[in-house]
Amino acid sequence: MASTKNILFIMFDQLRWDYLSCYGHPYLHTPNIDQLAERGVRFSRHYIQSPICGSSRMSTYTGRYVHSHGASWNNIPLKVGELTIGDHLRSSGMGCYLVGKTHMKADVEGMKRLGLAPDSVIGARVAECGFDVFERDDGMRPEGPDGPYDENGALAYNDYLREKGYDSDNPWHDFANSGLDDEGNVLSGWFLKNSTQAANVEEDDSETPYLTRRAMQFMEQTDGPWCCHLSYIKPHWPYIVPEPYASMYGPNHVPSPVRTDVEFEGAHPVLKAFMTTPVGEAFSREDVRNAVIPAYMGLIKQIDDQMGVLFKWLTDTGRMEDTMIVLTSDHGDFLGDHWMGEKTFFHDASTKVPLIIYDPSPQADSTRGTVCDALVESIDMAATFVDVVAGEVPDHVLEGESLLPILHGTANSTRRDYAICEYDYSGSPIATKLQADVRDAVMFMVANKQWKLIHCEGGYPPILFDLINDPDELVDLGQSADHEPKIEEMYAHLFAWARRPAQRTTRSRAQLEEMRTKSRGRGIVLGIYDENDAPLEITTKYRNRTAPPFAARHGKKAGAVSDLD
Amino acid sequence: MASTKNILFIMFDQLRWDYLSCYGHPYLHTPNIDQLAERGVRFSRHYIQSPICGSSRMSTYTGRYVHSHGASWNNIPLKVGELTIGDHLRSSGMGCYLVGKTHMKADVEGMKRLGLAPDSVIGARVAECGFDVFERDDGMRPEGPDGPYDENGALAYNDYLREKGYDSDNPWHDFANSGLDDEGNVLSGWFLKNSTQAANVEEDDSETPYLTRRAMQFMEQTDGPWCCHLSYIKPHWPYIVPEPYASMYGPNHVPSPVRTDVEFEGAHPVLKAFMTTPVGEAFSREDVRNAVIPAYMGLIKQIDDQMGVLFKWLTDTGRMEDTMIVLTSDHGDFLGDHWMGEKTFFHDASTKVPLIIYDPSPQADSTRGTVCDALVESIDMAATFVDVVAGEVPDHVLEGESLLPILHGTANSTRRDYAICEYDYSGSPIATKLQADVRDAVMFMVANKQWKLIHCEGGYPPILFDLINDPDELVDLGQSADHEPKIEEMYAHLFAWARRPAQRTTRSRAQLEEMRTKSRGRGIVLGIYDENDAPLEITTKYRNRTAPPFAARHGKKAGAVSDLD
Repeated sequence: MASTKNILFIMFDQLRWDYLSCYGHPYLHTPNIDQLAERGVRFSRHYIQSPICGSSRMSTYTGRYVHSHGASWNNIPLKVGELTIGDHLRSSGMGCYLVGKTHMKADVEGMKRLGLAPDSVIGARVAECGFDVFERDDGMRPEGPDGPYDENGALAYNDYLREKGYDSDNPWHDFANSGLDDEGNVLSGWFLKNSTQAANVEEDDSETPYLTRRAMQFMEQTDGPWCCHLSYIKPHWPYIVPEPYASMYGPNHVPSPVRTDVEFEGAHPVLKAFMTTPVGEAFSREDVRNAVIPAYMGLIKQIDDQMGVLFKWLTDTGRMEDTMIVLTSDHGDFLGDHWMGEKTFFHDASTKVPLIIYDPSPQADSTRGTVCDALVESIDMAATFVDVVAGEVPDHVLEGESLLPILHGTANSTRRDYAICEYDYSGSPIATKLQADVRDAVMFMVANKQWKLIHCEGGYPPILFDLINDPDELVDLGQSADHEPKIEEMYAHLFAWARRPAQRTTRSRAQLEEMRTKSRGRGIVLGIYDENDAPLEITTKYRNRTAPPFAARHGKKAGAVSDLD
Repeated sequence: MASTKNILFIMFDQLRWDYLSCYGHPYLHTPNIDQLAERGVRFSRHYIQSPICGSSRMSTYTGRYVHSHGASWNNIPLKVGELTIGDHLRSSGMGCYLVGKTHMKADVEGMKRLGLAPDSVIGARVAECGFDVFERDDGMRPEGPDGPYDENGALAYNDYLREKGYDSDNPWHDFANSGLDDEGNVLSGWFLKNSTQAANVEEDDSETPYLTRRAMQFMEQTDGPWCCHLSYIKPHWPYIVPEPYASMYGPNHVPSPVRTDVEFEGAHPVLKAFMTTPVGEAFSREDVRNAVIPAYMGLIKQIDDQMGVLFKWLTDTGRMEDTMIVLTSDHGDFLGDHWMGEKTFFHDASTKVPLIIYDPSPQADSTRGTVCDALVESIDMAATFVDVVAGEVPDHVLEGESLLPILHGTANSTRRDYAICEYDYSGSPIATKLQADVRDAVMFMVANKQWKLIHCEGGYPPILFDLINDPDELVDLGQSADHEPKIEEMYAHLFAWARRPAQRTTRSRAQLEEMRTKSRGRGIVLGIYDENDAPLEITTKYRNRTAPPFAARHGKKAGAVSDLD
């Protein structure tokens, strides 16, 4: 009988929740992903923990909030000592492997302090946020006047491209992420106008099919049980895709931007700062959206086709029978909505992402094809996976909830009353623009099914959206007198969350409960005036003892000189 | 010229702030400690971070709040990865050594996970919260039917006693912490009625003089610069002291308890639970107070005499000229005030402790003999020590403030608006009594110079004291309608504190500020439609590049079979 032996944890990068046909996109048709949703549960309210790659992923991989693990922006290292999915799964007998991107930045100083060699098994896992690396590919090889952004970016993929005849010092850029004009000039995918071009790469050699094949190679080679994090770069920028996808969509397929002039004019000062970055201003332009969005859609269509390839392979090899498949994203993309591009703010376009979970076990039969609107967070992935393997979730470390009860039809909601998302812009130019101290350049979102409150440190008023009456999040009620009680209520949620004992990770619930009675049995007997006031057995070691007076003791006498004098 | 080369960090255990003559005790005369205060600064408002040994000390030794490090009760291990005073000081060239108690519980599981051998230098430091151990003596060797509380308690001291002829399997108990009746029966110091007895030990062999000698031995043997944590067990229970101290004080020296019947009757349910423990009930009795407090005072008088011995030795050896001396305690003792014994709640009797700092450098001359009422927290010790050695405080890790500006007369207050203290009773029998879940058995105190608010998780109302109009903290204003704005204000402080980015420890302020401009120089150039829209130098790597069409590329052609296919 089918049951979950392995977990295939598929993540896309920057895939908006509503750019799949099963989530209602009007033009994109993604039948392969839709079919997975038909065989599993599709979650309609899945929030990520931070609207930027690095910190979102560190939450997913640790199962803990950003406020708990501290890796709150890209390139802020995840500190040594944080437990990861890999630690939890391996201790229950499941391997945990990486094929693709993590955006992990190792805590090199912390590793050095603890003497962890990067080339040791333990050191390598710590440096790779708990994964055993089959292939790491953070999917970017940007270069500037100060050198490359990431020495390790796309190394194997660049080797692969060169092997296939793409001659360049950086074929990732020159072929896979750029077009070409008739004179042989590379039209860099970094420049948004070039998103209208076809990437100058054979489709089969572009990043998404390449990584799909690498995943299949991993699965062919590796005995289970395994958790394989298949982590695609796309549809993340550079926004450019090879043919046939480059020609599939055009400006007529670009939805109108979700934004109003009133929204822009009256925007909260922190939101306004994000709207008026070069990125925000670019994506507010029609020519930019018309260039970028068709490419973004093409990248997603390619993804869906690759999912078709992958799912067929899983079926053919029998893996569909014993493998849980999770398909999600690390954050969305504003694409010009709300006068912003990129992610890095809290509207649903950025913080809500697709989540589809297919569980092969018969317990999940009753929920196949259903849609669940429970408040789900990306930290729930770790809890779910550990639940699959170990049958329980160590809630003193993992802050998420297992979704197995929902998958198995024994629950239709999570236990949480609100979802949390965080963004730290202390390392971003926006902090300079807002003259924000590093401790104040921090924001929190707390949302339930109707209300979303955003708190910006630094003395600003809150932002409040009514998700039922204003699902497009266009009207900020943060200064509405009528909504003061609601604002207080949402703040109370955020306050309770902020006080949670998230760092008490070295003792479990069961151990703490056991401690309640333990110390008396070990002789810590406080507040006893007379030995007969307490149960005799707990003071057994302190009664019926005899001794000589110290001055008459055996051996050295009072006043004898000790070698310690 | 005198300057600070070394730091002698003296801590007593369970020494109340007001049981020294320089802090105003009516009967205790502590001239040696008073003299240190005359030569340094005496702080009158020094709060510890948690009213129990282990978590208070872990905050002191890490320089971080309990909510940050998570070791929130005795025997909850300090997790691997937490930075300690020792890490900070050693990286600036100062050794960090232990003589005495820490109450550290090693994170054995975490160490194993990271492959840290307990007998390696790094492993030993991690297991001892950053100290190099000259002698560890947690000062207790309790035993019960389930065995000893702590396998490592008082081992060297017990050996010392046996060497001196105190024959017993546990001379710590039978001699140093018990009296003796005329028939040769040991009168255990665990039973409070025996606190009236003299400990059956030569005064010179009791714990306080023993540890003083061990500190002098350390200083004789060790080249500086060093920080030596001389950490005494006393006046912590068992409350019993040898002659001549046993006879110095009697019931006529016992101050009246600070408590009222109204306070007891109307007590907040959580406070009431603490009042009605066996300990609270015992210390509410006059016979218990009359037995215990004279012994407690005797222990303190002995401490003061030992400080006289130590300070004379420091003067004679020249160490007084180059050694900063810090004298403090880990928490206080209710001693029957507020119907409680022990510590474990938030009145000043428990949370405020003495702090005297003597700085030998001439910069401190202007403040000698002064009293400072700044809001000081025990996490400030680490920041101060690091400031002494390194000249700056890494505020992304250390949450306290350096007190050097106060010691040097350039400031008379800290920058903080409130002090925080925390108590976690999830592992205590009180949690059972209150039917509290492990996540709700947590309390916070936030205090400024006038107001002290106590928040208990689990849906309880707050407790509020007016420290100016009710310095004895007898009237709980937590449900006073008149005080609602004040309660809100104190809650706002607690909320702001709870949101602090305490886990962002892998990037400093300077590093975050540098990141604000760095990524564009590394090629992350977002939101650029046309290459001419951006400064040319940042896109230099993406312009003026040429390539062949992929189908006409050199080497392998389109459709060639890769070894990856």
